Amino acid sequence: MKQVRFRDQAGTVRTGGWVDEDGTPADTATAGQGGEIRAAGRRYSPEDVTVLPPSEPSKIVCVGRNYAAHADERGEDVPDRPLLFLKGPNAVASHESEISLLAGKDRQEYEAELAVVIGEQCRHVDESDAMAVVDGFTCMVDISNRDDQDRETNWIRGKAFDNAAPLGPVCADPEHVPDDATVELYCNGERKQSSTLEHLIFPVPELIAEITTYMTLEPGDVIATGTPEGVGPLSDGDSVRVQIEGVGKLTHTVTVPE
Amino acid sequence: MKQVRFRDQAGTVRTGGWVDEDGTPADTATAGQGGEIRAAGRRYSPEDVTVLPPSEPSKIVCVGRNYAAHADERGEDVPDRPLLFLKGPNAVASHESEISLLAGKDRQEYEAELAVVIGEQCRHVDESDAMAVVDGFTCMVDISNRDDQDRETNWIRGKAFDNAAPLGPVCADPEHVPDDATVELYCNGERKQSSTLEHLIFPVPELIAEITTYMTLEPGDVIATGTPEGVGPLSDGDSVRVQIEGVGKLTHTVTVPE
Repeated sequence: MKQVRFRDQAGTVRTGGWVDEDGTPADTATAGQGGEIRAAGRRYSPEDVTVLPPSEPSKIVCVGRNYAAHADERGEDVPDRPLLFLKGPNAVASHESEISLLAGKDRQEYEAELAVVIGEQCRHVDESDAMAVVDGFTCMVDISNRDDQDRETNWIRGKAFDNAAPLGPVCADPEHVPDDATVELYCNGERKQSSTLEHLIFPVPELIAEITTYMTLEPGDVIATGTPEGVGPLSDGDSVRVQIEGVGKLTHTVTVPE
Repeated sequence: MKQVRFRDQAGTVRTGGWVDEDGTPADTATAGQGGEIRAAGRRYSPEDVTVLPPSEPSKIVCVGRNYAAHADERGEDVPDRPLLFLKGPNAVASHESEISLLAGKDRQEYEAELAVVIGEQCRHVDESDAMAVVDGFTCMVDISNRDDQDRETNWIRGKAFDNAAPLGPVCADPEHVPDDATVELYCNGERKQSSTLEHLIFPVPELIAEITTYMTLEPGDVIATGTPEGVGPLSDGDSVRVQIEGVGKLTHTVTVPE
């Protein structure tokens, strides 16, 4: 099941399933483009509704350098335990949104990531039980302002600014996401990032165990699992698509104020 | 006015004023100890109710090294712009709570801070207008786990763990807080930290302007303005009191699991 939160034509927020046109729940990367949404006994065309982020996280716990090839392209070592950082709810942006980035920066970059949506309040979760607290998987872009990230102690100006976490379009059942699912990012239709979840240095259960050693996760909270190699700059008018096999396609455009 | 959120004997969450016993709104540091709470046409003894944090922040934006003498005791330079970091809502703890710290750490420390409660959704706030978005001032302890803080890139395990932000007891009108108000922390009755708000390197309006250049602040969001010198370790059973002139007294105890 690919669960989608959306606002219908009357302004009501609904939760439904995003299915292929023939009604089969899409097990491959089709949710987010075409198909139809079924909710409350009705069928909706995705073009007629506003797709909302799959949850309203109280926090997004992000993981840095979780693919060796990305750590390498940033000139950094692979960490010996997950490198964690935070984005607040202000960072969340929607599928098909037009995102305004920070003004006056030289380099703001895309980073495609698999994101985990938490399903229940939890702390001190064992690695072996960790998948039981997961509601599903979604796509995220960890938009990064390198001008500031590279000169601050904590990545707040660099990573926690408004709209720095486009999220969606669906919350997909992890059982339908292959262990070696491809994670890709396209900028203006050109493929810029491509890797698979097999390359995650710290896999999802290990991340959940480590994070909940320190903090409680709430329903709707999000863990962003890190980006593969191939990150690059965003320019005014760019169109971005993150595509994760078995999850869906998250798209947005960016405006970059002078 | 010293506004206090509390849960009454029936479990209802109320907002009232914390006054001295003679009914004068306390302009000096008395709220949090003695006096009475007036709300909804009734008088409550503070001992009979549960004092709640003054707001439910969607994020706490913290400032590091904002007093030169504290930067010095940590062996660090004073930053050329505010050093920002984040705590999520999971970090919030209440006045008079018994706070469980992290297990298996050698050094978890108290840091007394003036905290700013935001009153309205805002972004791109000019320094000259900044006090208009402030609901009031409160007290916070920025509890810090040095074991991890000193070896991680972003201070997540070090600063963003559960209960790492005791907050309260009231939201006080900034007009009754002197520019040179004393900020003190007592551990087991002994004064450990003492400074004044005059020593803030980046004052509150400058912090609000800088933070809202990057992110939207929501009503109830909190800015923690940094700690003066004199930070020190917490041990199992310790009793902590932060006292800020014109604001109030925030107390809590700690347990430190083995």
